Amino acid sequence: MPSTFIPQNSFFYAKIPSFKMKKYLTEFIGTFFWVTTVVLTANNAQMGLFSPLAIGLVVMAMLYASKNLSGAHFNPAVTIAALIGRNIDRNDAIYYIMAQLFAGVVAAAIGVFLHESSGGLAIAPRINESSIGAVFGEFLGTFALVYVYLNVLHTPKSEENDYSGWAVGGILITMMYTLNGLSGTAFNPAVALGACMAGMFGWDDLLLYTFGPILGGGVAATVFQI
Amino acid sequence: MPSTFIPQNSFFYAKIPSFKMKKYLTEFIGTFFWVTTVVLTANNAQMGLFSPLAIGLVVMAMLYASKNLSGAHFNPAVTIAALIGRNIDRNDAIYYIMAQLFAGVVAAAIGVFLHESSGGLAIAPRINESSIGAVFGEFLGTFALVYVYLNVLHTPKSEENDYSGWAVGGILITMMYTLNGLSGTAFNPAVALGACMAGMFGWDDLLLYTFGPILGGGVAATVFQI
Amino acid sequence: MPSTFIPQNSFFYAKIPSFKMKKYLTEFIGTFFWVTTVVLTANNAQMGLFSPLAIGLVVMAMLYASKNLSGAHFNPAVTIAALIGRNIDRNDAIYYIMAQLFAGVVAAAIGVFLHESSGGLAIAPRINESSIGAVFGEFLGTFALVYVYLNVLHTPKSEENDYSGWAVGGILITMMYTLNGLSGTAFNPAVALGACMAGMFGWDDLLLYTFGPILGGGVAATVFQI
Amino acid sequence: MPSTFIPQNSFFYAKIPSFKMKKYLTEFIGTFFWVTTVVLTANNAQMGLFSPLAIGLVVMAMLYASKNLSGAHFNPAVTIAALIGRNIDRNDAIYYIMAQLFAGVVAAAIGVFLHESSGGLAIAPRINESSIGAVFGEFLGTFALVYVYLNVLHTPKSEENDYSGWAVGGILITMMYTLNGLSGTAFNPAVALGACMAGMFGWDDLLLYTFGPILGGGVAATVFQI
Repeated sequence: MPSTFIPQNSFFYAKIPSFKMKKYLTEFIGTFFWVTTVVLTANNAQMGLFSPLAIGLVVMAMLYASKNLSGAHFNPAVTIAALIGRNIDRNDAIYYIMAQLFAGVVAAAIGVFLHESSGGLAIAPRINESSIGAVFGEFLGTFALVYVYLNVLHTPKSEENDYSGWAVGGILITMMYTLNGLSGTAFNPAVALGACMAGMFGWDDLLLYTFGPILGGGVAATVFQI
Repeated sequence: MPSTFIPQNSFFYAKIPSFKMKKYLTEFIGTFFWVTTVVLTANNAQMGLFSPLAIGLVVMAMLYASKNLSGAHFNPAVTIAALIGRNIDRNDAIYYIMAQLFAGVVAAAIGVFLHESSGGLAIAPRINESSIGAVFGEFLGTFALVYVYLNVLHTPKSEENDYSGWAVGGILITMMYTLNGLSGTAFNPAVALGACMAGMFGWDDLLLYTFGPILGGGVAATVFQI
Repeated sequence: MPSTFIPQNSFFYAKIPSFKMKKYLTEFIGTFFWVTTVVLTANNAQMGLFSPLAIGLVVMAMLYASKNLSGAHFNPAVTIAALIGRNIDRNDAIYYIMAQLFAGVVAAAIGVFLHESSGGLAIAPRINESSIGAVFGEFLGTFALVYVYLNVLHTPKSEENDYSGWAVGGILITMMYTLNGLSGTAFNPAVALGACMAGMFGWDDLLLYTFGPILGGGVAATVFQI
Repeated sequence: MPSTFIPQNSFFYAKIPSFKMKKYLTEFIGTFFWVTTVVLTANNAQMGLFSPLAIGLVVMAMLYASKNLSGAHFNPAVTIAALIGRNIDRNDAIYYIMAQLFAGVVAAAIGVFLHESSGGLAIAPRINESSIGAVFGEFLGTFALVYVYLNVLHTPKSEENDYSGWAVGGILITMMYTLNGLSGTAFNPAVALGACMAGMFGWDDLLLYTFGPILGGGVAATVFQI
């Protein structure tokens, strides 16, 4: 009885078949751990340059755990890119994005609670990014992320490979190092939402962090199709 | 004559067939190196943030070396999760857990001896975790660990993949970074037992470090089954 | 209509068939992100020893994303080595090298612009390498890079493996750490060109950084053939 | 005509068939880059805790590049373990070990030359290890290394996997971190020979660094056979 463990989803559960429910739950769990890792490591000055490694590794591991279940999007920008390439139907895409954003909210709430209860963590100061730099950084990073994602997971030849998790996790780590200082390097609206809730980004930047990734993902999907 | 090399196990050897003995020996060796790495790196202030990398890499390597022999549990929480999913029979599970706990004890004894004989190592101060935070941290980390483990090793499709070691090792590294400061990030009762012996955890916390992981593993196994 | 997104290539587009155009675009994108990562991380003193990790990871990820499309050279020294081994025809090789060098120029221009607009980044001081040391360092590093590349991607047995990206990315990381202080560790004329544009190398060293890698790649290709 | 590039081996070349020569050359190249990386990174105080990463990555990359050619031993302790398991014939084993030791000598000579010509590198102070600790550390580390090696490369099931390089490279990184301070963490007589030449180990310790790894490898081979 899944409703015991995920009461928050029991609302949908009555309406949609369980094999679909599994996919949305998989998206929820993967995105939840991505955002939890961001909130508890990128926000922790002691982690220094190890934070991108931690974030890339959780995406790598969750992608391998989930790719045969849901396709392992964990990111509205990826889901929209998949929609452009017609690799997902419209209804699924809406539930995917809802599960991802909901996971971002829950992860941020738990992350802030743990942050406070652990007490000893220092808050990393945020670099004051310019709006244009932030949008461009998010665009470029998400372009790379989605470009790699589509090429390792949505090509006939490469669908059954064993390297997809590392390719996606690796490009995420690199883009965080490369574009750090330019944007907040979320590359994912669900991460950005969680980061706003946790006080890591300002709420007025949420639009930038939604627009940049979706644009980057869209352009990558278009380049991928040619 | 294996009894020459593993006299401590010769007691069981008379009773159980050798193909089973191989499995328990494999569990012993894998857990032994996991706990040795924890005792000699997490306990060493000079290692800083490299300690989780070392621990994740030993689990990755030992998992690849052992997965075709014993399934590479190395962790009572994983064995109990496998029991819930009926992927292991009850007798085997008991021997597995005994081999894991025994490996934790031997590794801690050798680790402490090496620690003292090397002399130059500084002891890392332990953060004074609250009990609730520690249980919750252990629960969350072990949930992620077992969730990934089951999805990459106990699914029909993914049983013969080549990414299982990295997925499990990677989520372990991330969870150590993410939950560091909240709990001692053992995620494994055999590791917790060794850490208590080595003076890294207080003995009064051993129950927390046993209960948290088993709960996390159990919930992950239940989620995995739906 | 690719001309919308890559107007700079529309000149060639009229003349060459689109399946070939795809290859050159793939080389352009992969090399672009390699050089962008070099310009924004190796040039940033705050990155310290994490910069080689970031550069190796972008090559790993882009290699996996591109290997079934273009062969994932991203490097004139690799293309010339492939030409020696007759794994690419002469016309393709010329377009590959043009795409790589062009990507280096564009990445450097964007990288410098982002560098300045982000403001907060410190420029890492360059070690004043001797010419002979630099040529030898570039030779040795590129020999290792091309030797690994050919053995994991141009052998009948190993063509369909899943480890090629990590092998090439890993040897690149190691060679950067090993030969750091001896040369600028570009191992790639397209990277060297971008680094000169970004002020990381002096223009008078460009010849060294072109000659060293091509020699290293050529010797590796010859050793590989025997 | 390979004799042009490897004149030092031309002595053997007349006597032994070229398909065998290829194997020995492969062992030479792999061991050469292993030892070069040790001499130029472990000996460099600026590298800090990144040196084990560099060494593990070169072994990972060279193993993937060489496993279908020579089996990728790069280490007399591995060759002797393979001999115990009858995975290599006696003559081949002798030439393998000669190629490995010769590679250690050449790499040390070039490494010291580069070290001096680069000028700017600081020499890392060596911890004064006790003899018993050093032998035990080398024994334990090489046991783990050879145990993983045999399980991922010499089992019928796992011979064609894609994870062998990472498993071996990963356990090497972990053992370097874990046993650092106890021994010099060579786990390889060819590395120890090169380290003695480069002034990193004392010559009077060479016997310890030969005996420890061979004992560890031998015990691992015996455990593996049961």
